[in-house]
Amino acid sequence: MRALEFNTRPIFRSDYPEPAAGPGEAVVAVRRAGICRTDIEITRGYMDFHGVLGHEFVGIVQAGPREWKGKRVVAEINCVCGQCDLCTGGLRNHCRHRTVLGIQGRDGAFADRLAVPVRNLHEVPAGVSDDQAVFVEPLAAAFEVTSQVHVDAGHRAVVLGDGRLGQLVARVLQGRCGQLVLVGRHEAKLELAERVGIQTALEADFLARGDADVVVDATGSAEGFRLAGRAVRPRGTIVLKSTFAGDQPLNLANLVIDEVTVVGSRCGPFGEALRALARGEVDVTNLIGRHLPLERAEEALALAAGGDVIKVVLDVHDDCGHDNRS
Amino acid sequence: MRALEFNTRPIFRSDYPEPAAGPGEAVVAVRRAGICRTDIEITRGYMDFHGVLGHEFVGIVQAGPREWKGKRVVAEINCVCGQCDLCTGGLRNHCRHRTVLGIQGRDGAFADRLAVPVRNLHEVPAGVSDDQAVFVEPLAAAFEVTSQVHVDAGHRAVVLGDGRLGQLVARVLQGRCGQLVLVGRHEAKLELAERVGIQTALEADFLARGDADVVVDATGSAEGFRLAGRAVRPRGTIVLKSTFAGDQPLNLANLVIDEVTVVGSRCGPFGEALRALARGEVDVTNLIGRHLPLERAEEALALAAGGDVIKVVLDVHDDCGHDNRS
Repeated sequence: MRALEFNTRPIFRSDYPEPAAGPGEAVVAVRRAGICRTDIEITRGYMDFHGVLGHEFVGIVQAGPREWKGKRVVAEINCVCGQCDLCTGGLRNHCRHRTVLGIQGRDGAFADRLAVPVRNLHEVPAGVSDDQAVFVEPLAAAFEVTSQVHVDAGHRAVVLGDGRLGQLVARVLQGRCGQLVLVGRHEAKLELAERVGIQTALEADFLARGDADVVVDATGSAEGFRLAGRAVRPRGTIVLKSTFAGDQPLNLANLVIDEVTVVGSRCGPFGEALRALARGEVDVTNLIGRHLPLERAEEALALAAGGDVIKVVLDVHDDCGHDNRS
Repeated sequence: MRALEFNTRPIFRSDYPEPAAGPGEAVVAVRRAGICRTDIEITRGYMDFHGVLGHEFVGIVQAGPREWKGKRVVAEINCVCGQCDLCTGGLRNHCRHRTVLGIQGRDGAFADRLAVPVRNLHEVPAGVSDDQAVFVEPLAAAFEVTSQVHVDAGHRAVVLGDGRLGQLVARVLQGRCGQLVLVGRHEAKLELAERVGIQTALEADFLARGDADVVVDATGSAEGFRLAGRAVRPRGTIVLKSTFAGDQPLNLANLVIDEVTVVGSRCGPFGEALRALARGEVDVTNLIGRHLPLERAEEALALAAGGDVIKVVLDVHDDCGHDNRS
């Protein structure tokens, strides 16, 4: 089958082995897959991952339990043991023996098909389009912020980073906190947020006053973390939403002096994200900058890494029941 | 008067100007003063402070309001404006215009006398000795951990660092959490904790299992922060209790992946610390490794920096009413 494989660099292959579904797993034929900053970080060495990239996708169940076959699905990315202290302690997403689709020890979704544990599947409601559904994974990650940190109408929030995740976090926080500003470096990207009613500021014009109750750092850069430290108020909260590869020179003294809380935040509730999309509460599709076919995945990855477009989506199959391309 | 002044290096002077008490301030004659890691970090450039070092002390009010004169006191170190958004918002210790005794814009306690806002004073109960009272400031900082982070009998806690602050934090957490281990590099220091019933481990023997609910990093080192990251469980909490000067190479990716919360923690409740000492709930005096007279403050600072003794205390005046040494 076709797949974008990463070993030392991302390479498109048309002879990649078909996925072998283990016990309790389904094979999903991918319709759309989204490129995420994590994919790009992996190509820079993050997680030391080798295999098929990709963890944001929507597809059709092709093989697996009868009740799932033919259903349009998205899937949680953490594949867990169910038996370790964290799984039994209610922290399945943190399973000590987990594999993670396209990130850790398991092939991902930039391919014709991938194997996924059945219990990770969520059916996509009919009213949610493929282009919306491909955002469920990152949108769930955005909702994770509100599941970890209390925000309300009395709060002033700042989201740093006008990329994929920052945009989604801003859309989730919008209307939940009294003041919200999305700070970024790209006028065109900020304009997309303005269009859905979010207040924005160019980073060069943004004055960090140390008065924000909550700052979400979705920049994926050490500079972003430093700016978050200047923007947050004493005793306020920084939510660290994105990761970067390697060590960075950081000074944590101000966290102590200002008694700031830093909350690491990763995967979130798929159900909440699907409901928000089904109800039309969060507008995501204007974030798609470009559709490219799977064959052009190398180019798509480079395009996403370039940073000029927000979301690059790979079109894999239009009709997985009657696949006319693979 | 006598004082230990820091500009480019700590220098003992016998001709330092007497403190001038401003409105609402008292002059306190120092009896004992404790050397803290922050003092040592300041001599390495931290906070860019110049002036008389020292912020842990007990003394006698020599000049000020009649009702305070002659009283034995300790004093909170943050001197605040009372009018900024943080002061009026209940976060006085974080006042935007604050000075801090011996740390930021205001002379400290390694001197015959210092000026302190009257509202910062706390009278020391008769049953609390000078050697206990000199621990009130760092003990309050240790209690700050329990005011910020919930700990109970179901929790597993690790305290990293067998120095001054780690020892105090371990003493405060002892009996409040189900399991507690103090991890350090010095057998002799760990033995002091063992003597008051705290379980300890040498760092070389300590296996970070990623299963601690709460890890308090009181090492003041980037290595300590890294070890905290390996010791804490996913979704657990690291309390960052000490600061170090300058940038350090750090990788925050695991905070995100494991959704760890990092809580910066600084000054704490003096009242709670005084009550705990008065009730004999926390044993601190076995932490004093050495008493030295103020004249030998340079030597005392070097001794504290050397790390072989836990707490070095400067004896300034034995009897501040009838000072026989200055």
